[in-house]
Amino acid sequence: MQLWPIYGKLETIGIIPTRDLGEQMRTTRIAILGLGTVGKGVVEILSHQNNVTIDKILVRDPSRHNRDLPLTTNVWEIIEDPDIDIIVEVMGGVDPAYDYLASAIHSGKSVVTANKEVVARHGRELMELARQNRQGFLFEASVGGGIPVLDALMWHLRTTAIHAIEGVINGTTNFILSEMAQGMEFDQALKRAQALGIAEQDPSADIEGWDSARKLSILSGLAFNSWIQAEAERVSGITHVKSSHLHRLRDMGFGLRLVARAQKDPTSLGFVVAPTIYPLDHRYLKLSGSQNAIGIFSQAGTTWIEGPGAGGIATASSIVSDIQRIRFTIPDRDPVLFEDVLVTDIDDPYLIFREDPNQNIPDIPHSLQRGFGYVISPYSLPPEKGLVQYRFRVK
Amino acid sequence: MQLWPIYGKLETIGIIPTRDLGEQMRTTRIAILGLGTVGKGVVEILSHQNNVTIDKILVRDPSRHNRDLPLTTNVWEIIEDPDIDIIVEVMGGVDPAYDYLASAIHSGKSVVTANKEVVARHGRELMELARQNRQGFLFEASVGGGIPVLDALMWHLRTTAIHAIEGVINGTTNFILSEMAQGMEFDQALKRAQALGIAEQDPSADIEGWDSARKLSILSGLAFNSWIQAEAERVSGITHVKSSHLHRLRDMGFGLRLVARAQKDPTSLGFVVAPTIYPLDHRYLKLSGSQNAIGIFSQAGTTWIEGPGAGGIATASSIVSDIQRIRFTIPDRDPVLFEDVLVTDIDDPYLIFREDPNQNIPDIPHSLQRGFGYVISPYSLPPEKGLVQYRFRVK
Repeated sequence: MQLWPIYGKLETIGIIPTRDLGEQMRTTRIAILGLGTVGKGVVEILSHQNNVTIDKILVRDPSRHNRDLPLTTNVWEIIEDPDIDIIVEVMGGVDPAYDYLASAIHSGKSVVTANKEVVARHGRELMELARQNRQGFLFEASVGGGIPVLDALMWHLRTTAIHAIEGVINGTTNFILSEMAQGMEFDQALKRAQALGIAEQDPSADIEGWDSARKLSILSGLAFNSWIQAEAERVSGITHVKSSHLHRLRDMGFGLRLVARAQKDPTSLGFVVAPTIYPLDHRYLKLSGSQNAIGIFSQAGTTWIEGPGAGGIATASSIVSDIQRIRFTIPDRDPVLFEDVLVTDIDDPYLIFREDPNQNIPDIPHSLQRGFGYVISPYSLPPEKGLVQYRFRVK
Repeated sequence: MQLWPIYGKLETIGIIPTRDLGEQMRTTRIAILGLGTVGKGVVEILSHQNNVTIDKILVRDPSRHNRDLPLTTNVWEIIEDPDIDIIVEVMGGVDPAYDYLASAIHSGKSVVTANKEVVARHGRELMELARQNRQGFLFEASVGGGIPVLDALMWHLRTTAIHAIEGVINGTTNFILSEMAQGMEFDQALKRAQALGIAEQDPSADIEGWDSARKLSILSGLAFNSWIQAEAERVSGITHVKSSHLHRLRDMGFGLRLVARAQKDPTSLGFVVAPTIYPLDHRYLKLSGSQNAIGIFSQAGTTWIEGPGAGGIATASSIVSDIQRIRFTIPDRDPVLFEDVLVTDIDDPYLIFREDPNQNIPDIPHSLQRGFGYVISPYSLPPEKGLVQYRFRVK
C-alpha cells in the first residue's frame, strides 16, 4: 500500500509552491469514528476545505443520522480500507477506541483523536507506535477543546525548561461552581447543567475531577516527558462543595475553581487536581462556562492561553488543524519525549501556595477541608519564586 | 550544494524513530546576524541543544564581544557559505536586513527572523520567495516575543473564519502608561524606561505606535491574508497622553492601553492602533511591563494568549522553536495565504465599541481626543455581537 501524504511522497509535494498545491495535491481521504457533536463539527468544517474528503463514518445506529453521509457500522471496513489516509476518532472511551486506533496505525493510517482517556492512558505508546509505522498521531482536541495548547507545548514552550503547568480545564465544574456561587446547591446546579447539555448524564468524570486529571496527564506528558496515570489520592472533585462555602469564601474576597497543576523539581513531579481558592479578580474566576485557561511557567516567562474548552465547532477546529498538520508536515516529535521523571508525593493534604509567608491566609470553613485538600495560589505563582506551603488554620 | 534538513533528505530522517535521531541526524549549521540581547539568548539556548551548531555570527565590532564566538564582520562569508543551513536574523531594521534575507533564501538557506519591520513590509514576498526556493521562512519572534501566537494563527486558528484580532503588543508603552498612572509625567516615565533598558534611546517607534502597527500588519497578514502597510491616519501613539488624563480616567474606573486591532467584514478590513480605554479590571490593565496579550475572535470562539512579549530568553525561545520546526517539519504554509481583502476606511475618528447602546459612556477629557482617536471596548467585544459606534461627548 502506498501511503500518502505522510512520508512516502513528501519529497514530491514539498517542493511544489503552495500556490499550486490546490491542483497538484492528491485528495486526502478521511474516516471518522463517531458522529456526535464534535464529529458533526468536523464534517461541517471539512465540507469547506479543498482536497479532503470524508469517505466513511462509523456510527452505531445509521437510522439516527443523515443518510446522505457515508455511514457504516463496521469499523473494519474503515481500518482495512487501503484508500483511507487519516482516521479521526471522536467516539470517546478507552474500549474499543484504543484497539481501533492501534490497529489503524498498524494498518498504515495516521490518527487524529479528541479522546483524552485514550491519550492519557496510551498516548506515549501510541506516539511510539505511530513513529515506528511512520504515521502521524495528533490529539490537540483532547485538552482544552479549541485551544491550541498542545502544539505550542510540543514545539515552542519546551524550547526552555518548563517549571509548571496549571489550568482550569473542565467547563462543567466551572458552570456548576458559578451557579452555586449564585445560590444554587450542588445537585440543583448539576441538574441545570445536565438540562442544558453542559454535563453528561453520568457526570462523575467531570465532577469527581477525573476529566481534569486525564487532561493534566496529557499536558504533563508533553511538558515534562512524564506520562503519569493520576491516582485517587491526587485527584479531588467538587462534589463536597456547598453553596454556603462559596458564599463564605466570597465574603472573604475569594472564589473556588477546580484547578489541575503539575510542577517539576529536579527529582520529582507534583501532580494535583483539586478545588482551589483564588482572589475574586483572578483570571480563573472570570472564565465563563466552557472557557478554559492554561498557564505554562517556564524559564522564558509565563504564558497563558485561554479559549473555548468545549463545543462542537471549537473542538472540531482543533481536529481539522491536526489533519492539516499531518497533510502538510511531518509529525515528528521531540526526540527526548520519553525521558522519565520520578514521581514523588505531594504529602501535605492541605496546601497553600503563597508568595509571602507573612501574607494573610483566609480562614477556611472546616467543612471545606474534606476531600483531597485545597491549594491557594493567589498569583498563580511560578515555582521559581519559592513555594511556601501551609496547613490551613481550622476554625 | 546539498541542502539539509529542509527537503532533500526528509524521507531519510522522517522514518527514523526519534529515539535514535540523536545519532543519525546530521548537525544543522546556524549563522546569526546580530548579537544583541536576543542574539545572545539564541546562543545560550542552542548551547543546550543537540545536533545544532553556530558556525558564524555577524557583528559590527568584534572587540565588543566574546572572542570565543565565531564572529565575522562580513555577511557574505555567511550567505555564500554552502555549509550553513539556517540563518537567524536579529539585526533589526529593513536596510540592509531585507537584502541579506532575500539573498540568503536565494542561496538556498532557510531564514528565521525576529525582525518585525522586515516581515511587516516584505513578509508576503519573502514567504513566496522561500516557497520558490524550497526553504523555510519563519518569524514567530517578530510578534509577541516569546508568545507562540503566529504558528497558532497559521495553522490552528485559521481553521475557522477569524473575525478580529487585537492586542496589547508593545511593552514599552505598557510600562510608561503604568508609571504615568502612578503620577509620573510622560517625559519622566520615558526617561525611566530608557534608564531601565525598556525603551530604546530613540523611542519613537514604540511611543508613536509604529511598533504595534508593524506587529498588527503581521498578525493581520496571517489572520486575514491581507498584508497591510499601516498608514499614519490609522496609527496613534501615546505621546499626547498626560498623567492627569490617566488620573481622571481612573477616578471614573477606567485605564488606558495602546491597543492594536484588525477586524474583517466581508468586504473590508479595519486596522487601527490607538490608545484605548478599558475598565480597570480588564486583562489589558493587569499586564505587567513586557507582558503582551493577544485575542483572536473566530467562529470557534475567542482565544487569548498572554505571555512575555520581550526579553532575550523569551524571544530567543521563539527563534529556537522556529529553527526546530524547520529542522523537523516542512515549512509549507497555507495555500490561500495570498488572497486579497479590500481595505476601506474606519472613517469615524472617535469610536466607542460597546455591547449595550444604553451603557454609560465615560466623559472623556477633551485633550485626550487629540491624535487618531480612541476605541472603547469594555468587553473586548467579538464583532459578531454587533458593534455600536459612538462619538465621544466632549465636555
